[in-house]
Amino acid sequence: MKTMQCMALVILLLAPFSALAEDAAISEATSECLDCHATIHPGIVNSWQSSRHALMTPQAALAVDELARKVSNPDAGANMPNVAVGCAECHTLRPQAHADTFEHNGYDLHVVVSPDDCKTCHLQEVDQFAGNLMAKAFANLDQNSLYQILVESIIGHPQIKQHKIEFQKSDEATRAEACYYCHGTKLAVTGTQVRDTEIAGELAFPVIAGWPNQGVGRINLDGSTGSCTACHTRHAFSIAMARKPYTCQECHVGPDVPVYKVYAASKHGNIFATKHAQWDFKPVPWTVGQDFTAPTCAACHMSLLVDTDGNVIQKRSHQINDRLPWRLFGLIYAHPYPRSPDTTIIRNKDGQPLPTDFAGGFAETYLISPEERAARASLIQQTCHTCHDSSWTKGFWSRFENTIETTNAATLTATQIMQTIWKSNFADPDNPFDEYPEKVWSNVWLFNANTVRFASAMGGGGDYGVFADGRYQLSKTIVELNDWLEMRRRLK
Amino acid sequence: MKTMQCMALVILLLAPFSALAEDAAISEATSECLDCHATIHPGIVNSWQSSRHALMTPQAALAVDELARKVSNPDAGANMPNVAVGCAECHTLRPQAHADTFEHNGYDLHVVVSPDDCKTCHLQEVDQFAGNLMAKAFANLDQNSLYQILVESIIGHPQIKQHKIEFQKSDEATRAEACYYCHGTKLAVTGTQVRDTEIAGELAFPVIAGWPNQGVGRINLDGSTGSCTACHTRHAFSIAMARKPYTCQECHVGPDVPVYKVYAASKHGNIFATKHAQWDFKPVPWTVGQDFTAPTCAACHMSLLVDTDGNVIQKRSHQINDRLPWRLFGLIYAHPYPRSPDTTIIRNKDGQPLPTDFAGGFAETYLISPEERAARASLIQQTCHTCHDSSWTKGFWSRFENTIETTNAATLTATQIMQTIWKSNFADPDNPFDEYPEKVWSNVWLFNANTVRFASAMGGGGDYGVFADGRYQLSKTIVELNDWLEMRRRLK
Amino acid sequence: MKTMQCMALVILLLAPFSALAEDAAISEATSECLDCHATIHPGIVNSWQSSRHALMTPQAALAVDELARKVSNPDAGANMPNVAVGCAECHTLRPQAHADTFEHNGYDLHVVVSPDDCKTCHLQEVDQFAGNLMAKAFANLDQNSLYQILVESIIGHPQIKQHKIEFQKSDEATRAEACYYCHGTKLAVTGTQVRDTEIAGELAFPVIAGWPNQGVGRINLDGSTGSCTACHTRHAFSIAMARKPYTCQECHVGPDVPVYKVYAASKHGNIFATKHAQWDFKPVPWTVGQDFTAPTCAACHMSLLVDTDGNVIQKRSHQINDRLPWRLFGLIYAHPYPRSPDTTIIRNKDGQPLPTDFAGGFAETYLISPEERAARASLIQQTCHTCHDSSWTKGFWSRFENTIETTNAATLTATQIMQTIWKSNFADPDNPFDEYPEKVWSNVWLFNANTVRFASAMGGGGDYGVFADGRYQLSKTIVELNDWLEMRRRLK
Repeated sequence: MKTMQCMALVILLLAPFSALAEDAAISEATSECLDCHATIHPGIVNSWQSSRHALMTPQAALAVDELARKVSNPDAGANMPNVAVGCAECHTLRPQAHADTFEHNGYDLHVVVSPDDCKTCHLQEVDQFAGNLMAKAFANLDQNSLYQILVESIIGHPQIKQHKIEFQKSDEATRAEACYYCHGTKLAVTGTQVRDTEIAGELAFPVIAGWPNQGVGRINLDGSTGSCTACHTRHAFSIAMARKPYTCQECHVGPDVPVYKVYAASKHGNIFATKHAQWDFKPVPWTVGQDFTAPTCAACHMSLLVDTDGNVIQKRSHQINDRLPWRLFGLIYAHPYPRSPDTTIIRNKDGQPLPTDFAGGFAETYLISPEERAARASLIQQTCHTCHDSSWTKGFWSRFENTIETTNAATLTATQIMQTIWKSNFADPDNPFDEYPEKVWSNVWLFNANTVRFASAMGGGGDYGVFADGRYQLSKTIVELNDWLEMRRRLK
Repeated sequence: MKTMQCMALVILLLAPFSALAEDAAISEATSECLDCHATIHPGIVNSWQSSRHALMTPQAALAVDELARKVSNPDAGANMPNVAVGCAECHTLRPQAHADTFEHNGYDLHVVVSPDDCKTCHLQEVDQFAGNLMAKAFANLDQNSLYQILVESIIGHPQIKQHKIEFQKSDEATRAEACYYCHGTKLAVTGTQVRDTEIAGELAFPVIAGWPNQGVGRINLDGSTGSCTACHTRHAFSIAMARKPYTCQECHVGPDVPVYKVYAASKHGNIFATKHAQWDFKPVPWTVGQDFTAPTCAACHMSLLVDTDGNVIQKRSHQINDRLPWRLFGLIYAHPYPRSPDTTIIRNKDGQPLPTDFAGGFAETYLISPEERAARASLIQQTCHTCHDSSWTKGFWSRFENTIETTNAATLTATQIMQTIWKSNFADPDNPFDEYPEKVWSNVWLFNANTVRFASAMGGGGDYGVFADGRYQLSKTIVELNDWLEMRRRLK
Repeated sequence: MKTMQCMALVILLLAPFSALAEDAAISEATSECLDCHATIHPGIVNSWQSSRHALMTPQAALAVDELARKVSNPDAGANMPNVAVGCAECHTLRPQAHADTFEHNGYDLHVVVSPDDCKTCHLQEVDQFAGNLMAKAFANLDQNSLYQILVESIIGHPQIKQHKIEFQKSDEATRAEACYYCHGTKLAVTGTQVRDTEIAGELAFPVIAGWPNQGVGRINLDGSTGSCTACHTRHAFSIAMARKPYTCQECHVGPDVPVYKVYAASKHGNIFATKHAQWDFKPVPWTVGQDFTAPTCAACHMSLLVDTDGNVIQKRSHQINDRLPWRLFGLIYAHPYPRSPDTTIIRNKDGQPLPTDFAGGFAETYLISPEERAARASLIQQTCHTCHDSSWTKGFWSRFENTIETTNAATLTATQIMQTIWKSNFADPDNPFDEYPEKVWSNVWLFNANTVRFASAMGGGGDYGVFADGRYQLSKTIVELNDWLEMRRRLK
């Protein structure tokens, strides 16, 4: 009891919004959950207890001023009981919709809470996220025949077959732990298991294939896609955590998308590292200059930003690409952003399911127009301008677009060598990813050209633009590929 | 004087346990040390001054409740004077036992404080640590003939000899700075040196070969092994520091054991990075959900954990392997944990001093049984359950054990290629680690398979499971090895 | 208004020196700047508002005690108005000197503030920095014909020409974003651009080639070199930030100079990571043991350090090399520090513009003498001694100098192989950096030998001394180079 008082004091000191805590009663159902689970799972229960969900009702959350409002579904008050958002409130939502709903101590509850559950309060965020490439991360990988060849050439089981390495199809556990750890797995209920629990004796639980997983494009048991907990970590679901770069690092540390490393070594990252203990990551809207003085990933890509007079600089968006003119991640070249989050529909001029062809041409039908690119560039630059003048931003941006061109040109050089290798029968293009020269070639576009572009995008460079998987390795790898080819030519 | 008061105030504000400070008198001997060394070495003296050692006597430390007690030797009160544990208390302990004991201003003191000194108060911790693989880190490397070949093929002096690179024996300084920096050096007194000191004129000091070193398996001048300061950094010896992942990073940042990087990019690491400024790293026992809400290295592997009702979840252990069923670090395959911390006794079926043979078979006589593995798995999962339910833990664990199998299988494929290379006389198996294909092969098991396993063990994956020294590089390296072989076959 | 009061309160609580704030009036000119820019650029304005510049006049700054004084120009009081150092105070300094001076709302202001502006108050720091290798970072790279061949072999545009990769000259944007991002660009006004601004209608601004840039050796528009904002980040110019290792990480994260990574994994870095939230990074002088208990980069290389009695341990220096006996960065070998910051004057015995010849000999005329090396070693060791005794420091230092020798010897072995390759016409030495074996050879000295040396210099080792770009990769790369040679020999 004394501990609880003490903790309450700490919360009062740290979290101004806890003034609202007195309004948020805990439902009887959630109380029952807590009776056992507070002791069994003290870690997550405590995370929840100090979260906004535990301290506020949906009704109170709806009543705050529009810019500060976090609940975007106007029906949230009607949809939800007037209690704190506790265990039962989420895990018993829409029981008929979830294939993993099971009877547990008198309640119909489901294990995997989905975006379609979260949408009961956070409608706009879920809808926006659905327009995001990440929402389709499962299918975009799983339903693309060419990417599947790449996947299996990386995570398949290597076997020696007639003097070659053959990759035999990967098993489900490996898929779930490798690519689909971030992309999201496809969940499925495969049965029921009875376990003898310490507290309540024998209880039955659903067995779920693909579980656990928190990938951004997870296929859920109610048919929805995505996992809000990828970024809004259970069970605090803290906006403060999602706004820090550590969250993005979980999937973007490299060398394919080394943005966390690039950020950490950038001027922005330096300011963040030095100063963020004095910043406030909780306010909505988020005031540039007052709450923070250098951007994190969220500040540029998602957050609702205002200036110190309260004027909106950027609207909140969970559709990250509405500020992104280019897709830097080279497949195999960087290219204008896809129009649709579903990239499985894309075909390049050679019929391949790729946004660019091997000669570097864009599959323009499926990609945004130059006008849309200009509009998006202009939109994200509004954030730059909160600290930088036009000449700075313009100088930075023209270098960035030059780097997209030059790295695509370098990738083309590497691809021309690779095509000579294929034409010379030194490698088999049927699987373009499984032989040694092909793996050298992959390094060029998947790691080196990407690293250079991300370094450029996030401030200009430093080591990631040159020595740390950047232009040094880009040039070396192309030369290695050519050296390999020339050796085979001599032996022909 | 004003500064000291101010500092005292700071200490009072920051460290609740300083209420005990008034009890801890400083011995006359330590006062004499401080008279000079407080000015000569202000860094370490201040670290000590704000440490528990400076604020508490062994007698007071013994009097606290059992779960909270940090002094495990019941004789500590009798063994030690009733004063703060200062410079003299440790550096004059057991003078006859230490080869580096020398007369210094009227005291017989030694430079290198050893675990056998620490054990005067911290008996259980030292005894437990002795059962740890790390306690034997010096001999396990130094006395293993095969590992020594590997060591010298890495840190030996490369020379061109008849068109080959020959590695000439490494010098002592290099050994101390390379492998033995973490494994620990063997200390030896080699003489005495007289130095003209600013404060006290000419003084004699012992000359110690292998010094400085703080490696976990250091051979000390009293014959004991280990160095508590490897983790409990001098001269604060802070439990809070040892519980943070930065301590483990000193030796485990990769790519052989990239656990710090993996942790930093994991969900656990994200929560730690975002939240730890609000956590309390000092309490013993350590309460899950109250003191912290996501595990650090120590929480899973060493610390005494209780739930919010004070029930013990895990006992403190300095024998880390009592919660580890598998040794993930591949030599050359991952394998069940060795029974004894002394791995020099292990012989595989081919007579090699390795826990597995080159075909992947386990040297079972020397490794723990499946039953013991199951018991250890069950023990460490108790920590998982403080935040995760059984279905989560089970799903995670089955993927993890699958990954041990698949990475061992990939290592076998690489080893089969390597054996063909040896049989074909394209490389000489007498030293299996010094030629180019052998170094490519080493990458497979030493870096790539290990990285994949550690990524799996610590949450599932992310980039370290695939693109960052993970499966991408694992597959590429195997293909490179085969490519090398095929080229030699063509030229045969 | 309420927000401003609240912010003031926060500032009072956080920054004791703000007691002086009442003295610092804001000039009319700066007020006019703020009228618009506080809303347009809230990020930088707020950074400035909480900075010492905003809270203190140059006159007040001059009046503090000598050791605590940050303004080293005795004429600062006469040079500058008795107001806070705001936008106008710096951006209108010396208008005739700056090529980018333009009329803006009635003021003659320039975009790029230079060290020669900063020197109006911070004379000594600017003068010292000019003696630093970094101050010449532009010319030392740009005017060295051999380094330019290396640069273009990395950042040039790779093209296939007669079965070889030819690097066509890099474009300006790439140069500015790659090497010159850290080294500094050469700025030049190329014209004027009129922009239609939201607040003030059409305004004319200078167009500046090479902008933005904050590289340490930037060639400024007043002819001066360097950029104080490389480390003293705009617009807080915080000494606290410059003293944290994150600042150095911006250019030194590796693998050529991986010092941030090495530091993070060192004992010093562990203490910093664990403890720095309780340290005070602002005081001048900086008291070892009281303000901090483990060094950051600045503590060893730049800062004014005193002991707890106020005795000076190290003087402040912005000429970093006055404590550096060796240049560890191998070009192509580590070597005694150059005498002059201008390294373009150096010629080795073979006439190449390199501090060492390819056989490892030092270009001694241009490098400091053994006596000077000893003096510098002794100077930096004074900092070591604030925590370590002589035997520790001596042991550490002798290993460090041994490592310089052994890594130079390994580089020699690699270079001998490379010379055989050149002599055998397997590669063309005219450009010694653009073919595959040459790029393998570059890895040896540019990445691996450097990493080993920096790991040694900063505490002894850990993974960066062995497995993480260290001796493991050093040995592997040499063996790879030899393997490449032997294959060509067989085919000859």
